[in-house]
Amino acid sequence: MQAPEALLRLTEAYLEDLKLTPELGSQRESMRYALTGGKRVRAVICLATTEAAGGDVEVALPAAAALELVHAFSLVHDDLPALDDDDERRGRPSTHIEFGEGVALLAGDALLAEAFRLALTYSTLALVQELVDATLGMIGGQYLDITGVDPDLKELHRLKTGRLFAASVGLGLWAADVPEAEHAPWRAFGEELGLLFQLVDDVLDGDGVAARVGADEARARAGEAAARAHEALAAILADTSVLAAIVDGLAVRTV
Amino acid sequence: MQAPEALLRLTEAYLEDLKLTPELGSQRESMRYALTGGKRVRAVICLATTEAAGGDVEVALPAAAALELVHAFSLVHDDLPALDDDDERRGRPSTHIEFGEGVALLAGDALLAEAFRLALTYSTLALVQELVDATLGMIGGQYLDITGVDPDLKELHRLKTGRLFAASVGLGLWAADVPEAEHAPWRAFGEELGLLFQLVDDVLDGDGVAARVGADEARARAGEAAARAHEALAAILADTSVLAAIVDGLAVRTV
Repeated sequence: MQAPEALLRLTEAYLEDLKLTPELGSQRESMRYALTGGKRVRAVICLATTEAAGGDVEVALPAAAALELVHAFSLVHDDLPALDDDDERRGRPSTHIEFGEGVALLAGDALLAEAFRLALTYSTLALVQELVDATLGMIGGQYLDITGVDPDLKELHRLKTGRLFAASVGLGLWAADVPEAEHAPWRAFGEELGLLFQLVDDVLDGDGVAARVGADEARARAGEAAARAHEALAAILADTSVLAAIVDGLAVRTV
Repeated sequence: MQAPEALLRLTEAYLEDLKLTPELGSQRESMRYALTGGKRVRAVICLATTEAAGGDVEVALPAAAALELVHAFSLVHDDLPALDDDDERRGRPSTHIEFGEGVALLAGDALLAEAFRLALTYSTLALVQELVDATLGMIGGQYLDITGVDPDLKELHRLKTGRLFAASVGLGLWAADVPEAEHAPWRAFGEELGLLFQLVDDVLDGDGVAARVGADEARARAGEAAARAHEALAAILADTSVLAAIVDGLAVRTV
């Protein structure tokens, strides 16, 4: 079992070596820029799931990278003036500030398509389908976010953050060839993980749920999600210690 | 053999009945808006290829629709102020004029992901891979377009228009289960078709190649591309009369 830090290093090395489609030309520079500097939470969850389920981390790396590409795509487009209009991301100028809006728009498009290209290196169609479905759910969440029609934020968070977190576990299972009949307890874990991440995010940013119910209540809810995630892990007959460490890490993170 | 007009009607009916991902909520309205009113050239080419190759048009419909979704995605994003800044498309306000920039941006993203979801209804991985690769090539073409680093427009057109046209033939072949070893003459046809389409486009719009070498020379080059497309069809041992009619239709089109 490799620790989250080791899985993070594997992800970084894989992303650094990743060959992007040559026909994209120098567009690839903006894509690499957008891909730099993330926490790689989704990739690490995917790899840790694969390893806990008895699979090979090396086999899961393209899936883990594909999750990060989808995440990067969503950030690049979210940061555009047409959506959140954020000039900074990960402590640096956002992609559209660095490369211009047109290039950033296309960089997001290309990151999404490259994510699917990566996923298609697997012959397990269900893995690719799960990534595509999660992406569509995530876009549905972004749409709820800008139209503001979800008063309690529950559906918004389930879609915008939760779908890709759940898919991080799901893709890890497919990469480990876990039969679908055995997915349920793992997937219950994945659902709580996304919720936990978002609640802590809201506490740290002072917005979302924290702004609605107060930081203390939001923190309490995050604690409950973490407890349920641990319960879900306890129901799995495997060494899930690394996944448990990820839960604890997400619960106490400060960035 | 069904005529292009019949294949167009099949495409329209399929797109009208197409279920988009429920999690997208009312975002689906903007996607349907963006999908309305095209010439469906790519879908018709795909279906006609399948039928000429001895396949079942019904089987090819999801692939044909996926091509139209990718095309619609590219138009919605191209029309945004960050790229071409076009207020009109297909005789109506562009998607961002009708729904706002944020919704249009997400509509494009969702159309692209839905296209891949549709393609994934096939178990032929090569079909999905071809659609993804063509999309990446097309984005590379859009990037060349905004950076203006391709002086003779050849590579720009091969990527921006040609890749999806070639894939229209390719997806039609995969949908008809044509073994890859037999693809070459069909694919030679697909390459010429994209070139023909773009040259006529430039003549009609008075830009691109027509602006560089004059309308007469551009028209002459289109005629040569049409002749080569017919030659390619003549090398195929099948009834390619509908594909030949499509070539003639593209060569003389006025819109």
